[in-house]
Amino acid sequence: MEELSILVVGSVALDTVETPFARAEETLGGAASYFTTAASLYSQVNLVAVVGSDFPREHLEFWRRRTVDLSGLQMCEGRTFRWIARYHIDMNARDTLDTQLGVYAGFHPVIPGEYRDSELLFLANIQPELQMEVLEQVHAPRLTVLDSMELWIMTARAQLTEVIKRVDILLMSEEEVRQYTERASLVAGVHHLLDLGLKHVVVKQGSYGALLFSADGTFFSAPTYPLEEVVDPTGAGDAFAGGFLGYLSTVTPGPDGQYSIEDIRRGVVHGNIIGSFVCEDFSIGRLRGLTMGHVAERYQILVDCSHFDPQWQFGKSR
Amino acid sequence: MEELSILVVGSVALDTVETPFARAEETLGGAASYFTTAASLYSQVNLVAVVGSDFPREHLEFWRRRTVDLSGLQMCEGRTFRWIARYHIDMNARDTLDTQLGVYAGFHPVIPGEYRDSELLFLANIQPELQMEVLEQVHAPRLTVLDSMELWIMTARAQLTEVIKRVDILLMSEEEVRQYTERASLVAGVHHLLDLGLKHVVVKQGSYGALLFSADGTFFSAPTYPLEEVVDPTGAGDAFAGGFLGYLSTVTPGPDGQYSIEDIRRGVVHGNIIGSFVCEDFSIGRLRGLTMGHVAERYQILVDCSHFDPQWQFGKSR
Repeated sequence: MEELSILVVGSVALDTVETPFARAEETLGGAASYFTTAASLYSQVNLVAVVGSDFPREHLEFWRRRTVDLSGLQMCEGRTFRWIARYHIDMNARDTLDTQLGVYAGFHPVIPGEYRDSELLFLANIQPELQMEVLEQVHAPRLTVLDSMELWIMTARAQLTEVIKRVDILLMSEEEVRQYTERASLVAGVHHLLDLGLKHVVVKQGSYGALLFSADGTFFSAPTYPLEEVVDPTGAGDAFAGGFLGYLSTVTPGPDGQYSIEDIRRGVVHGNIIGSFVCEDFSIGRLRGLTMGHVAERYQILVDCSHFDPQWQFGKSR
Repeated sequence: MEELSILVVGSVALDTVETPFARAEETLGGAASYFTTAASLYSQVNLVAVVGSDFPREHLEFWRRRTVDLSGLQMCEGRTFRWIARYHIDMNARDTLDTQLGVYAGFHPVIPGEYRDSELLFLANIQPELQMEVLEQVHAPRLTVLDSMELWIMTARAQLTEVIKRVDILLMSEEEVRQYTERASLVAGVHHLLDLGLKHVVVKQGSYGALLFSADGTFFSAPTYPLEEVVDPTGAGDAFAGGFLGYLSTVTPGPDGQYSIEDIRRGVVHGNIIGSFVCEDFSIGRLRGLTMGHVAERYQILVDCSHFDPQWQFGKSR
C-alpha cells in the first residue's frame, strides 16, 4: 500500500520547565516538536514551523534521521520561541511564567508544494487565523485533526469556530470544552461541538486519559496507562495526536476513504500510549529511543487492564 | 446457593445540598444510606447506624420494603446528623458549610447477634476507632471493604492504619492516597497501601471513575459512564461500594472462598454503574425506582464503549 505522509503545522520552541522534583532548561519543546517526534515513529512527517538562528542543529539532525522532512521549516534571523513554566504538586496543573515569541511573532505558515497532498494533517495549537491559512493551502486531506487552547477560545473565538467547521477531529481538554461551549455538562458540550460538523471529538483529561465522542452517537472510554512516575507532562496532548495520526497513517482506510470507528479507537489507544511515554522524561527524551516493540508491549498491557467480562449475570436466580 | 447478607456500619444523615443549578433540603443522606439503598438492589442488607427522634419514618418504611434489616439501627432521643454542603461549578469539588452531629456524637456501633455472621462487610466513612469496634464484634467475613476520608487521615492516622491492616479492600480517592501515603506518585502510594496487607485498592477518581490495583500486581481501568447531566454527586462513592458488594453478594466464590479477579472487576463495573445513577438526582432519588434491567442496560453500554481491538498490527510491512 501507499505510504501516507503526515503534515503538521505548529510551534517549535525551547522550553524551560520546572516540576516539584526537577528542572530542565532550554530543551526541545513546542507542540509541533512533540507531534513530529511521536508521529515519525510510524511514518514520514512533513513539518511546517519556524525557528530562530539560535536553534540547536542537533534537533534538526535528530529529526532528519527519523524521516522528518524539514523543507517546510522556516529558519529566521532571531530567537527561537521560548516557553517557561512551572508545574504544581498535582502535575495536572501548571503556570506559564514567561512566553518569548521571538521569530514566531511574524510566523505565517508556507506549505511547500510537495506537502500539499499530505493525507493526514495536524493543526497544532497556534492562532486560528494561521490554522486557516494552512487549510487554504492544502488539497483534500483524508483526515484533519485540530488542537487549540484557552487563549484562542477567549481571544479568537469566531476564527476558531470557522476552523472547527472545516476539520474532522477536534482535540480539546475537558475545561476547554466547557469554556468554548459554555455548557456545564461535558456531554452536552461535546454534542454542541459535533453539531458544528466534526466527525469526532477527543476530550483530553490529563492523567485520566481521553474520551472519544463520535458523530455516529458512539463514545469510547480509552484506558490509561498508570505511570509509576510522571517526570514532565508537557507535550502529552501533542504526543497523543502524534500517536493517533501516526497509527492511522499505517492503516488502510475503507473503500469510501474513511477510517472505521475501530481504526479511530485503536488510534486513541496509540495516542494514550505515546502520551504516557512522553511524561516519563523531560522534553522528547523518552521518545528518542522508543521502538514499536515498546509501544506493542504497552498496548497489550492496556488490553489486559481494561478487560472485564462482557457477560454479566447473577450467580443465583432471583 | 446461600443468600449472602451484607452488613454496613456508617452514618445516616439529613443532607442539605446546593449545586450551581439546584438545591435540596433535608433529604436522606449519609454514607450508610447510599450504600444500603444501592446494595439492597442485589441482596439483603443489615444496617447499623444511629438516627434521632426527628428522623422521617418514610425512609425506614422504604428500606423495609427493600429487604433492609433495621434491627441494628439505633433510634436515640435528639436530632439526626445533618450535613450542609455546596458544590463548585466543577462538581468534582465541594465545600462543607456545616456539620451538626446530633445523636451521632455519642454513637457506638452495636452489631446484633444475627448480623455477626454477615459474609460481606462495608465499613463506611466513620471514625477509625468505631470501625475497629465493628471489626471486634463480627466473626470472619468473607470480604471486608473500608472507606475513609481526609479528616481521619489528618486526625486519626494511627487508628486508620490499624483498621487498614485488618480489611481486604480499601476505597480511597486519589487525593487521599497521596495524603495518607505522602507520595506524589499515585502508583507508588497504592503499592505502599498494598504492602499493608490489602488484597485490593480501589482509587476513586470522581467523574473519571475508578482504578483497581490488586496485590497480585494487576490493575484494572474501569470505564465510566459519561452522564449527560450531573444533578448531585453526593454519595457516589458510597453507592459505588453498594454496587460493588451488592454484585459480589450474588457471586459464588471459588472453592477457597475467594473471589476471582474477574469477579472483583465486574464488581467495580457495577460500582461505577450504581455510582453514575446516584449522580442523576439528589439524595437516593434515582435509586428508588432502579431495576436490574436498568443496571444491565448500562453494563452493556460500558462493554461497548470500552471495547477496542486487542490485536493491533501495522497495515503495511516495515
